[in-house]
Amino acid sequence: MYADTRTSSDQLYLGKLGVPDAFISFKKGAKSYAVLSQLEYSRALKGSAFDTILSLEEWMANARSKFRRTDVGIAEVIAALSKAYRMTGFRVSGDFPAWLAFELRDLGFEVKATQGSIFPARETKSEEEILFLKEGNRCSAAGIWAAEKALKSATVKRGYLYLDGKRLTSERLREVIEVACLMSGAVSLDTIAAAGDQACDPHCAGSGPIKANELIIVDVFPRVSKTGYHGDMTRTFLKGTPSDAQRALVSAVGGAQKQAVEQVRTGVNGKTIHTSIVTYFDERGLKTERNETGAIGFFHGTGHGLGLDVHEVPRISNVNYKLKRDSVVTIEPGLYYPGLGGCRVEDVVAVTDDGPQILSTYHYRWIVK
Amino acid sequence: MYADTRTSSDQLYLGKLGVPDAFISFKKGAKSYAVLSQLEYSRALKGSAFDTILSLEEWMANARSKFRRTDVGIAEVIAALSKAYRMTGFRVSGDFPAWLAFELRDLGFEVKATQGSIFPARETKSEEEILFLKEGNRCSAAGIWAAEKALKSATVKRGYLYLDGKRLTSERLREVIEVACLMSGAVSLDTIAAAGDQACDPHCAGSGPIKANELIIVDVFPRVSKTGYHGDMTRTFLKGTPSDAQRALVSAVGGAQKQAVEQVRTGVNGKTIHTSIVTYFDERGLKTERNETGAIGFFHGTGHGLGLDVHEVPRISNVNYKLKRDSVVTIEPGLYYPGLGGCRVEDVVAVTDDGPQILSTYHYRWIVK
Repeated sequence: MYADTRTSSDQLYLGKLGVPDAFISFKKGAKSYAVLSQLEYSRALKGSAFDTILSLEEWMANARSKFRRTDVGIAEVIAALSKAYRMTGFRVSGDFPAWLAFELRDLGFEVKATQGSIFPARETKSEEEILFLKEGNRCSAAGIWAAEKALKSATVKRGYLYLDGKRLTSERLREVIEVACLMSGAVSLDTIAAAGDQACDPHCAGSGPIKANELIIVDVFPRVSKTGYHGDMTRTFLKGTPSDAQRALVSAVGGAQKQAVEQVRTGVNGKTIHTSIVTYFDERGLKTERNETGAIGFFHGTGHGLGLDVHEVPRISNVNYKLKRDSVVTIEPGLYYPGLGGCRVEDVVAVTDDGPQILSTYHYRWIVK
Repeated sequence: MYADTRTSSDQLYLGKLGVPDAFISFKKGAKSYAVLSQLEYSRALKGSAFDTILSLEEWMANARSKFRRTDVGIAEVIAALSKAYRMTGFRVSGDFPAWLAFELRDLGFEVKATQGSIFPARETKSEEEILFLKEGNRCSAAGIWAAEKALKSATVKRGYLYLDGKRLTSERLREVIEVACLMSGAVSLDTIAAAGDQACDPHCAGSGPIKANELIIVDVFPRVSKTGYHGDMTRTFLKGTPSDAQRALVSAVGGAQKQAVEQVRTGVNGKTIHTSIVTYFDERGLKTERNETGAIGFFHGTGHGLGLDVHEVPRISNVNYKLKRDSVVTIEPGLYYPGLGGCRVEDVVAVTDDGPQILSTYHYRWIVK
């Protein structure tokens, strides 16, 4: 690998050490190695999962002497390492950069790359990883609770929500959520607190004042700073009094979510779950349609794997994918109808032979008085 | 490109639209194109810097018909696009993945990749980008001010700092900083609040109780959520009474930092600045040494480019690199001596023909009573 741990979860998975700049790491047999600069070296010696920490400066010197020139780069350092560790080719991670792969091929190495993680083991979680993911969802819950509390405290004036004398906006709600996540030890990026028609774009973060009697989607997927693992929960709220159509929407999504969760089990095909939810909505007359400016109804997957990345394998969508024991997935059906609003409910479950093991806990009451 | 905007600044630079999952984008002539799924499509239509938004679902269908099979991937979609837009080869970004580059070469395309950004223009900042970077540094300053305020409020008992009845720790200081950044509209990751010997590892974030009379390095490099641009400032504090050796250390770093800032100007070689700082410390008997467990003294670069990435070109280090007009760099010399502690002072400056334009503002008083 050649990556930093902020952008590469594979790099973090291997070394369990946060490093802000790209560095070389490799496995030979069962042993793992990292090549780190002076800036990281002693910190890595004190604690990481790498078996051996090598000095970048030393191996740069080695590469300079091997290539008999001073302007050596990463490819030349890898070549020097390869000679010493007797490697003639590499399997590289899904985020391995093309420029380096090309340089290594030009130096005569065999380079094989595949999409996605280089560690198939990342798909199934250890007991420790399950605990980390529970912790992530405790942070999500802290964020959602902060949002709900703000909505409870808010007052309604001429149709708009007010908090502390000011109009309550999506921006303010996000701030409240993100501070709560921070205080729990996690960083929440791209937090969604979108109301009304804005929520009909599932990745729209939301902006501007929030009105009474409109559905508010709150989707919080923070990363725990200590471990790198995520939470991912969504609840939909409404401050005020819902219409019958809003009630029907929320009830359908809640029913679908519950039904999808119940189907999670070792060996089940993700597509089977997703298709059953599509059918569930269809049978209730909740239409999904696409046109040139977007889509309405249920137009995203039912869920995805969760771990060091927010989106990882497996997928629960219209693609065949058998769920493995101890994998961890979100279940998050949603419905989106401009004019009426959007609703999504999301929990995180581990896959076991006996069914779903819920890793996220938050109540489902959605009407905030 | 094929990247998400959280990990790829090139992707964010081109489209000015945050997208959490990897997507295809390309430029042909002066026009830029993004290929987005249903989930992002309508949000992108409403506002992005792309000239044309294409539908991933449509181009997947196109690829399926072109390749006459159903299991097409990203490479096949790019092949379909290439036929329609008459492209036979690509220059790809530094973060373009190897697996996709190999697949494209196997499909007969010419793929050229270079390390670093594909947009040389990212090195020099527009007036708007300068404003964004100033805003980033206002967020940094808010974080540092929060830390200083906490240190001011802290009391000393048996050598340890106490805040609100509890021992003041690096973790608590980081929390205070990160909340302040959030409230200013920025996310601060990997915030450094390291005291005593911990600060002698320049990337150590710090942990555990903070003592009186020890140097505390506070390094805050948040990313403004709205724009993606960073701040990056460092101040060193001490609560209590410094020793003469600590005073000498802080004074030397302060003097070096000021001298380095003054040298910043269009056309100056970064190496010249860095070397002058190395000499500055050497002449004062402040030794830099390396051994097998690490290094002491001044053992990192003097500065680096700042923009959408925390670390980008140019470098101000022992490598030749001519500073371009309107590039933006940090200036951050530091000294680290276990037993005595570490000190680093960092500001951000824009390179102009007339000298440095300071983009970060915070006072340099370091003794907190």
